[in-house]
Amino acid sequence: MSSAFQGRHIGTDAAAQAEMLRVLGRDSVEALVNTAVPDAIHVAERESIIPPAATEAEALAELRDLAAQNRVARSMIGLGYYDTLTPSVIQRNVLENPSWYTAYTPYQPEISQGRLEALINFQTMVTDLTGLATANASMLDESTAVVEGMLVARRASKSSSNVFLVDADALPQTKALLHHRAAAVGVEIHETAYDQSPSPADLDVFGAFVQYPGASGRVWDPTEVIAAVQAQKGLVVVAADLLALTLLRSPGSMGADVAVGTTQRFGVPMGFGGPHAGYMAVRSGLERQLPGRLVGVSMDASGAPAYRLSLQTREQHIRREKATSNICTAQVLLAVMASMYAVYHGPEGLRRIAEEVTAKTSLLREWLVGAGAEVEHDAFFDTLVVRTPGRAEDVVADARRRGYQLWFRDSDSVGLSVDETTTVADLQAVAAVFGVETSKVFVPLRDRNAHLPASLRRADEYLTHPVFNTHRSETAMMRYLKQLSDRDYALDRGMIPLGSCTMKLNAATEMAAVSWPEFARVHPFAPLEDVGGYLVMIDQLESWLAEVTGYDAVSLQPNAGSQGELAGLLAIRGYHHSRGDQHRDVCLIPSSAHGTNAASAVLAGMRVVVVACDEAGNVDLDDLRAKVAAHAENLAALMITYPSTHGVYEHDVMDITAAVHDAGGQVYVDGANLNALLGFARFGDLGGDVSHLNLHKTFAIPHGGGGPGVGPVASKAHLAPFLPSHPMAQRAEHAGGFVFDGGPVSAAPYGSASILPISWAYVRMMGADGLRAATGAAVLAANYVSARLRDHYPVLYAGEGDLVAHECILDLRPLKESTGVTVDDVAKRLIDYGFHAPTMSFPVAGTLMVEPTESEDLAELDRFVEAMIAIKAEADAVAAGDWPADDNPLVNAPHTAEAVVAGEWTHPYSRETAVYPVHTLVRTKYWPPVRRIDNAYGDRNLVCACPPIEAFA
Amino acid sequence: MSSAFQGRHIGTDAAAQAEMLRVLGRDSVEALVNTAVPDAIHVAERESIIPPAATEAEALAELRDLAAQNRVARSMIGLGYYDTLTPSVIQRNVLENPSWYTAYTPYQPEISQGRLEALINFQTMVTDLTGLATANASMLDESTAVVEGMLVARRASKSSSNVFLVDADALPQTKALLHHRAAAVGVEIHETAYDQSPSPADLDVFGAFVQYPGASGRVWDPTEVIAAVQAQKGLVVVAADLLALTLLRSPGSMGADVAVGTTQRFGVPMGFGGPHAGYMAVRSGLERQLPGRLVGVSMDASGAPAYRLSLQTREQHIRREKATSNICTAQVLLAVMASMYAVYHGPEGLRRIAEEVTAKTSLLREWLVGAGAEVEHDAFFDTLVVRTPGRAEDVVADARRRGYQLWFRDSDSVGLSVDETTTVADLQAVAAVFGVETSKVFVPLRDRNAHLPASLRRADEYLTHPVFNTHRSETAMMRYLKQLSDRDYALDRGMIPLGSCTMKLNAATEMAAVSWPEFARVHPFAPLEDVGGYLVMIDQLESWLAEVTGYDAVSLQPNAGSQGELAGLLAIRGYHHSRGDQHRDVCLIPSSAHGTNAASAVLAGMRVVVVACDEAGNVDLDDLRAKVAAHAENLAALMITYPSTHGVYEHDVMDITAAVHDAGGQVYVDGANLNALLGFARFGDLGGDVSHLNLHKTFAIPHGGGGPGVGPVASKAHLAPFLPSHPMAQRAEHAGGFVFDGGPVSAAPYGSASILPISWAYVRMMGADGLRAATGAAVLAANYVSARLRDHYPVLYAGEGDLVAHECILDLRPLKESTGVTVDDVAKRLIDYGFHAPTMSFPVAGTLMVEPTESEDLAELDRFVEAMIAIKAEADAVAAGDWPADDNPLVNAPHTAEAVVAGEWTHPYSRETAVYPVHTLVRTKYWPPVRRIDNAYGDRNLVCACPPIEAFA
Repeated sequence: MSSAFQGRHIGTDAAAQAEMLRVLGRDSVEALVNTAVPDAIHVAERESIIPPAATEAEALAELRDLAAQNRVARSMIGLGYYDTLTPSVIQRNVLENPSWYTAYTPYQPEISQGRLEALINFQTMVTDLTGLATANASMLDESTAVVEGMLVARRASKSSSNVFLVDADALPQTKALLHHRAAAVGVEIHETAYDQSPSPADLDVFGAFVQYPGASGRVWDPTEVIAAVQAQKGLVVVAADLLALTLLRSPGSMGADVAVGTTQRFGVPMGFGGPHAGYMAVRSGLERQLPGRLVGVSMDASGAPAYRLSLQTREQHIRREKATSNICTAQVLLAVMASMYAVYHGPEGLRRIAEEVTAKTSLLREWLVGAGAEVEHDAFFDTLVVRTPGRAEDVVADARRRGYQLWFRDSDSVGLSVDETTTVADLQAVAAVFGVETSKVFVPLRDRNAHLPASLRRADEYLTHPVFNTHRSETAMMRYLKQLSDRDYALDRGMIPLGSCTMKLNAATEMAAVSWPEFARVHPFAPLEDVGGYLVMIDQLESWLAEVTGYDAVSLQPNAGSQGELAGLLAIRGYHHSRGDQHRDVCLIPSSAHGTNAASAVLAGMRVVVVACDEAGNVDLDDLRAKVAAHAENLAALMITYPSTHGVYEHDVMDITAAVHDAGGQVYVDGANLNALLGFARFGDLGGDVSHLNLHKTFAIPHGGGGPGVGPVASKAHLAPFLPSHPMAQRAEHAGGFVFDGGPVSAAPYGSASILPISWAYVRMMGADGLRAATGAAVLAANYVSARLRDHYPVLYAGEGDLVAHECILDLRPLKESTGVTVDDVAKRLIDYGFHAPTMSFPVAGTLMVEPTESEDLAELDRFVEAMIAIKAEADAVAAGDWPADDNPLVNAPHTAEAVVAGEWTHPYSRETAVYPVHTLVRTKYWPPVRRIDNAYGDRNLVCACPPIEAFA
Repeated sequence: MSSAFQGRHIGTDAAAQAEMLRVLGRDSVEALVNTAVPDAIHVAERESIIPPAATEAEALAELRDLAAQNRVARSMIGLGYYDTLTPSVIQRNVLENPSWYTAYTPYQPEISQGRLEALINFQTMVTDLTGLATANASMLDESTAVVEGMLVARRASKSSSNVFLVDADALPQTKALLHHRAAAVGVEIHETAYDQSPSPADLDVFGAFVQYPGASGRVWDPTEVIAAVQAQKGLVVVAADLLALTLLRSPGSMGADVAVGTTQRFGVPMGFGGPHAGYMAVRSGLERQLPGRLVGVSMDASGAPAYRLSLQTREQHIRREKATSNICTAQVLLAVMASMYAVYHGPEGLRRIAEEVTAKTSLLREWLVGAGAEVEHDAFFDTLVVRTPGRAEDVVADARRRGYQLWFRDSDSVGLSVDETTTVADLQAVAAVFGVETSKVFVPLRDRNAHLPASLRRADEYLTHPVFNTHRSETAMMRYLKQLSDRDYALDRGMIPLGSCTMKLNAATEMAAVSWPEFARVHPFAPLEDVGGYLVMIDQLESWLAEVTGYDAVSLQPNAGSQGELAGLLAIRGYHHSRGDQHRDVCLIPSSAHGTNAASAVLAGMRVVVVACDEAGNVDLDDLRAKVAAHAENLAALMITYPSTHGVYEHDVMDITAAVHDAGGQVYVDGANLNALLGFARFGDLGGDVSHLNLHKTFAIPHGGGGPGVGPVASKAHLAPFLPSHPMAQRAEHAGGFVFDGGPVSAAPYGSASILPISWAYVRMMGADGLRAATGAAVLAANYVSARLRDHYPVLYAGEGDLVAHECILDLRPLKESTGVTVDDVAKRLIDYGFHAPTMSFPVAGTLMVEPTESEDLAELDRFVEAMIAIKAEADAVAAGDWPADDNPLVNAPHTAEAVVAGEWTHPYSRETAVYPVHTLVRTKYWPPVRRIDNAYGDRNLVCACPPIEAFA
């Protein structure tokens, strides 16, 4: 057992746990959790279908076996996914470096300057290439970004129309997503084959969508279509390929309001569908309509430029059902990779890659046409559609035998796309599939861009900022990445005790397979026979997740928690509609819920009704019964988080779920806090009909600095038919034999498939016992912190026996009242002590929510506790008048090295007190790169692209 | 071309090179180098056998093809190499992290505290397990460590005997090495099958060697043998398996004087033979006889404990021919890995692994014996020898078909070893090879250590220091590794312009294959059919290296430059002996040579005669002729470095080599400075007969913080028969069809094979043109630095047109004379400016030798130049009396953060001047972890194990 992974994942060993139990006055971890968790929901003893825990070596060997069942073919399927060369320096120093992948979302910007700079590079790259004013810091994928674009258009358009016009030449998965998502929010989709002068009848729309270049490869000029739609008060959303935009006129220059797309081919492996960073950029004036996160430049307490998230008031965690979107997790790690690809190649490098791609496509076309083949479109960038009347299936099958995957468009035509990795030998092999004998010699075309219409060729410059023109050698690139990571605080430095975020260990063994070509270089629409390993793994993971949550069916398609939530609500919607209950559209949401809940409910076409909470933080059962009664007829669902966002196990949960069921409603259990329950209780057993999970919380996928996430949706059998399906899925069946038919919520059939090996390995190496032990250790750690800090900061909510679940809320409002010291001051002061702050002011303003997770050891827990106690003493010193309220180590926190080195020291406390409040920090000091950041200044002076380097002088 | 790797490897692009040429007043890089390099040695235009440069993607694909030609079988061959589980957290955060692998040898201890701590952990691990007083910071491998142990015995023994007694049950490769190396230094080897009372006649020896456990697996008690040898004034060297020592009595407790061995099975992959860290520990009193590097504890200017290399005066770079050894590069990166394996597992974990191993071995023995097989020895740890009269070959072949590699000991017996990775299923499969049907159930033995003799079971504790008992969770381990790497300065932070060390880029693509199982999990004595990919790669690399150096044959066996040098000199010795010229034993060495040259010559049985250099740093041709004449009869060789260690291209080189040849001597050209020549001239063309190369200098293998290195030896055809051979080599033939017969210099046939893919990839991605371009860029960079600094610091030596080669020597003696500021002060002050110092006081005391390499870009070169100019101005300020000589930023350098934060600031310069002498440092500051270290204190108070943690309070 001692070679077990469990002992590596869980930070506290038996001796430490004994010490912690002693402090708590409890006998055992089992007893502790069983006291905290209501008896009624204790899971029954059962034989688990999860196999006994594998060692790390065994899990790696099994993953290698699964990998061997995938086939790394040459993918030319295209449709938004292209093979790409990840620069090794980026793979090694970003994707495989815990300093990047274990970081959290940059909500503490003072210790996130590295990834914020990488993200502002990303935004600059997107705005430059799209020719629009403002880009956000990534979207989940291209197809969901198109949906979000449609929603931007609906919010911003002054048209009263309910119709959204969609390019018939859009990617098929995007069309499917548009239809599914539009239906839920009452938008009508009209597909149209755009030509140069769309008929006016088509234009009574609030918006239109253009794919540029088209799915068929066609390159055409949408300028007139854009103008015509805008003339009718519609907004135009263009999905554009960023690589093509290095040669083609930008959407902005053609008048588009919104541009969206993917940055996958900028060095991010296809990964059987994801994760990759989608993007969205908008014209000036639409900034406040942008969904998702937006990095901007502000300044710190010394007036130095400093990055942080801008305009957060748009976001779901603040605006709830009025948010611009339900997006929470984005794709930061992948956005960083894509931006670094642009940093590494620079504008010349990207243009050269694009020219190679289009030249090779042209060459292939010449061979095919020269041999009599019929190729659609004369203007294209990287994609050809070849007419193969009646033979398409044979052609695709023949290509596959030769090692090439083509796009089976229909029985009479085959598509193929050229990418950065395509060689001339590949072109020859593919030509041979079409019966064309090619010369062995590559004859360079006179005009490599011959098939890009002259009027659409790009003339303006892009990526002119020095950051895209400096780091050209690998040495320079490696150092830039190191310097940025040195500015950040991630799990490799210390604990990140963020309540509701579960920042547990992301083990290196779990991460290993993500880099293997057999998982990385797989197209999401590759044929069934080429993805056997993935499908086995997905099947196993689905069944394991179903078992541990007490559900029957699981879909791994949602590529973020927000999407899983939406998929679950859409399943409820589908279920009611299937029973003729179209009128059931009321969604009850407790006041303490994550803002995402409300935002997702709106996107599922539901009306949000808020249920009150009592002073203990629990759902007010009386209010719930009243609201159920008031809306019984129209009740669609209750959304509830368990244990609650207040960090306690509600004892009424069975009554609550029964009340909803009795009224014909469905119960949605938010899985955000599953880490407090796994192995001890199951959502399905306590009345849940459907849940989403967060694999990046409970199941060890790293947060990546703000994504990727994976948000599987799990349900009882009666909802299974309404779980996400996908038109391009390799097979219809899921674990348990269920066939889903709910329509897609992500661009790819299995969402962010390439990171599923992480959660697979986590479950495989923990086993059912290990998962339960992790829950016990997590709950023990939270209660230990709670017990040790209770005398210094009131613990806001607790359940049975004064116990909390896996997190605890420290109430700082009394402190503020007595000392003037704010939650912000404490959070920033923690940086000086070498910590990332807990979650601030959620779910209750003026509080800190601490979730230590099971992965922290006792030494680190104690270090945190002692820092918090020391900070309390500092606050008391302020209250006592030892330090003025406006000049003390708390309000001035965090302190940079420069702040204690440069100039006169005029503060009433010493330099040592500023930066070494604890002596051990001398050895392990993390130096924040900037002082406290002025958030309001940044929102008032919105700058969301790289500042000129002079700004840092 | 722009996707070429060359543009990523070489830091300066065309625009930068043009600017640098402008400063130098030169037209082109070609013209520059052709002016610097004497006409007579310019390489002729030729068609290269090196294929045109591959892209990174192509090289990776080819490496994957080669990998596929190796077979990852279950190796049970043993003989000092065992499959092992590298903890993923160590693999990812050490082996695959440039912060560790791009670091240099810790000669600047103030910025090497992280790896020095890791090495002192290593030393503590070795002393604890061996029960001896002092261990060094690694040896090259076990077999060479045994040879070094023999040499320690000879130096320290008061016996007049010339005989060294060797265990008949020693590893076969160790025996071969002992015989070969002993012959060169005039030691007689007597093999003996020890039993409990060795006959006194055997004991007139200066030392004896014991393998513990024996190659045959036998565990016995050597206490009496040790005492008997010591009674006759001999010293006893014991090669001990560290894993076995967790269960068995330590060599120290049995009276051994010296313990040696390998730490490979502590998490370092077999890698077809290396690199791994060997070890050596000695009893109290022998510390000053230790070869290699020794880390000790001293204190810094504040009195805080600080690590640095101890007793350097023993080493070859200072003591030259009187050194304890010729070892220079050690195996730091692998020693770090092995020490971290112990940190991660701790004493309980190691003991558990060892118990599993020996329990499984016992189980297999029971099955075999139970079925009537004859197994040698009843006492063993992990190895069994099974009698298979007449059938051994068939048994081994049958095992191979089932996926198992066994040891073909002789035609009548087969050996097999159990390791950490062996499963019960493996045991069953192997039992089946011997015709034994085993039960499917693993019945635990009552006494898992049943076959360890009771009298030899270990009773004392080990690894009790907190460092081995704290980092048990992966989270804790990851943070410890991060904290240590944060204390170090490596290439990922900035340039390391170390003259004669060539700290160029170690590209991530080059490093990739090292981690692949097909290269990592291969036993060095695996059968020919299982190592096809390795052999193809080795053949190609041999032929490429031969071509670029102008030689005919290359051996990759030497696993360090020092070993390559020794192999080359032994080849010369073998050649002379083969012609009956046993008397030719004089080796001429210029006074400017690396100390290693002289130390190696002694080990090759030669007498060193020093040749003078002129004031320009060149070999004094008159003195050379005089020495040649004086020793003509006995002249064996001249060792010369080209370009010289003074950094210039000597124009007389052809005359020099001709003079030696005329007298019947051979010319050894030291390849340390090949980076100044590659593509422009070849050692073979300028009269060299044999050379060693440093793949960790010119061919991109990372320095790893002080190793691994690879030091191939290359020679003309007439010396090829005397190049290194190996009794266990899979094949006798080498590239070009040569068969070597010189005897082994490393434990494994191909030395540090697992890192050869790095150099293979480097050559493959650069192509012949790229290698030449790199040389040009390196020479340009050195001349640029030289030209820009010449007015501030005299450049000591220059050749034609005031040009230097790839490095330049800055003379700081005038500065010291005028200001009192020393080389040390400048080197340490460079740390404050964010640089690693150049080479100090080599080859001339009071100088700095700067080698920027081709990988630095112009911005970094300029940053360095400007730092040096600013430091000169600071020194001038001292001279001008602005700052006192004993209190200024130079003598106080480096400045830690604590030094500028804590307490009163009493210096006559500001805190900003101390740590931010240049404003851009605010953004990129590297904080040294300690102040200047007192070296003498550490040598006077020798402490070479982990200090108690209270020392850091």
